[in-house]
Amino acid sequence: MESELVKKLTETASRIKPFDEEAALRADRHSDGLTKPPGSLGKLEAVARQLAGITGELWPDLSRKAVIVMAGDHGVCEEGVSAFPQAVTPQMVMNFLQGGAAVNVLARQAGADVVCVDVGVNADLAHERLISRKVVHGTANMAKGPAMSREEALRAVLAGIEVAEEQAKNGIRLFATGEMGIGNTTASAVLATVLTGMPAEESVGRGTGIDDEAWLKKVAVVKRAIEANAPDAADPIDALAKVGGAEIAGLVGVIIGAAACGCPVVIDGYISSAAALVASRIAERAKPYMLASHLSREQGHSKLLEAIGLSPMIHLEMRLGEGTGAVLCFHFIDAALLLMQEMATFESAGISKR
Amino acid sequence: MESELVKKLTETASRIKPFDEEAALRADRHSDGLTKPPGSLGKLEAVARQLAGITGELWPDLSRKAVIVMAGDHGVCEEGVSAFPQAVTPQMVMNFLQGGAAVNVLARQAGADVVCVDVGVNADLAHERLISRKVVHGTANMAKGPAMSREEALRAVLAGIEVAEEQAKNGIRLFATGEMGIGNTTASAVLATVLTGMPAEESVGRGTGIDDEAWLKKVAVVKRAIEANAPDAADPIDALAKVGGAEIAGLVGVIIGAAACGCPVVIDGYISSAAALVASRIAERAKPYMLASHLSREQGHSKLLEAIGLSPMIHLEMRLGEGTGAVLCFHFIDAALLLMQEMATFESAGISKR
Repeated sequence: MESELVKKLTETASRIKPFDEEAALRADRHSDGLTKPPGSLGKLEAVARQLAGITGELWPDLSRKAVIVMAGDHGVCEEGVSAFPQAVTPQMVMNFLQGGAAVNVLARQAGADVVCVDVGVNADLAHERLISRKVVHGTANMAKGPAMSREEALRAVLAGIEVAEEQAKNGIRLFATGEMGIGNTTASAVLATVLTGMPAEESVGRGTGIDDEAWLKKVAVVKRAIEANAPDAADPIDALAKVGGAEIAGLVGVIIGAAACGCPVVIDGYISSAAALVASRIAERAKPYMLASHLSREQGHSKLLEAIGLSPMIHLEMRLGEGTGAVLCFHFIDAALLLMQEMATFESAGISKR
Repeated sequence: MESELVKKLTETASRIKPFDEEAALRADRHSDGLTKPPGSLGKLEAVARQLAGITGELWPDLSRKAVIVMAGDHGVCEEGVSAFPQAVTPQMVMNFLQGGAAVNVLARQAGADVVCVDVGVNADLAHERLISRKVVHGTANMAKGPAMSREEALRAVLAGIEVAEEQAKNGIRLFATGEMGIGNTTASAVLATVLTGMPAEESVGRGTGIDDEAWLKKVAVVKRAIEANAPDAADPIDALAKVGGAEIAGLVGVIIGAAACGCPVVIDGYISSAAALVASRIAERAKPYMLASHLSREQGHSKLLEAIGLSPMIHLEMRLGEGTGAVLCFHFIDAALLLMQEMATFESAGISKR
């Protein structure tokens, strides 16, 4: 069974097309002819270049957008690492489905769908718009042993791949990652420490809002999780299973799946970035399909983005997750494409060059 | 005549209502009841608070938006401080009026009007949508003497006030500042050095794209402009006249005028921030009406924003001006208001608190 899952994952990763450098160069040339000093639109020009390299087109139609919100619970919550009770995970999933959460408001503004997936919530949930791909009823407590088996982690990754493929089949061309899971900044901090080597004191932040005492406890829990599991930094699936989470694994799949479908994918905050790092270790080719959105207040986030090679565009000091920062970034992606498509050229506007 | 102008300016500044702390507190209370950890939306919550304090409403209707693009030329260009010829100023003004510039594309995306004002272009311009409030045909070379007389500077400020008041009368509720003027990063650098005390080596950046040699020349020009004019740091109008520019003075007026009309005003990049600093020195009460948008690549920008007490939301490494960064920020202002208005509360969604 496990080898079957690995085969599917490898097959998906191998379908990711390499970045189209020629199309990216065409984008640069077009951009340099527009009525502005070369490079003066900064990262918006870099985004336009990247989208051209991903899609092969100078102004691809990315109007159909979706944020995939993966939800899962964390056994490590029994160590008291979060400011909120675990019951909030399923409650917030229902909030997403009813359209009342921050990500719903921001997705409506950006013209994006919210696709909510249960990969590991520790409650039985049913709703007509919920995609149920439950792999675990919450992970086990990683401070004492592995959060998931290798097979569970792989199944969650494949669930993410399948969701991305279904959405792409339905016309979605631009993805954002989102998540819900009380305790998942802890799992992300462990993954960050294992995969980048940064100390727990740097990877552990304040999550949804813990105090100094709880922060010290959280640092200790991260260290214990690493001691208890000895995750293999060279084997991203091993790390994901032992010290990750079902929703993080699901997002790894969304990222790889989106890339395999030729779609750019906007990475949200700390948890999404942990998933992006794992995805880039599994499938190096998925990297050029990723765009960083915001820099979260979670203290390890900037180092985590650097480790992937991403640079954020938005500095709003948010620390909410759900995909909120990624969805805000959709406006900038639209802006980059509109600029490419609608700006006058030096020639058409009769403007002197330097 | 001059005393008449000063009287009008003082009268306008005195009409700026103080920030409504009570409404801001109501916004905070509302925000804390929404389904997210308190403060987790970061600066978006701060924006919502600020908009409440400005307008007295929790979700004011700011749908009618405009970016005011002030244009003017700079005599200091004869010192060779810019990568582009001065002719580009009137050419770009025509580009704005024809809808082909970056700010036009971004304003259309954000649902905002582009209002183009000639306060000091060194060419005779005519277009049905151009607002002509010409005070000078380009400023004089500040490296040799004052850029403008005190009266010219005051007339440009009042032109800005009147444009803002007209727009507010026509229903505009949210303003952004924009500008066009070859040479105006030099004027802004001189203003920054005079008003904040930062050395010219910190206030002078690369503008539209000059090389090392030209940068050294620009630093020397900034120093000479200060020596030649001895602008009075304690008298913002004196500094504005001697080492500013007509479009910068116009923006000072837009900011003070918008605040007097009870409207928030989003500050664009380096030049707009120099205008915002002058405006805050003339009318301290205008400060709470300002929102910073992006951090430009112009190296002195972050210190300039700090001097006003503003913190940028967008890090796109742009260095274009025109109001482009400010207009991008409109999406975040809309987002802040939509979140306040549409998010579920802990109570309405039945979600457990911490």
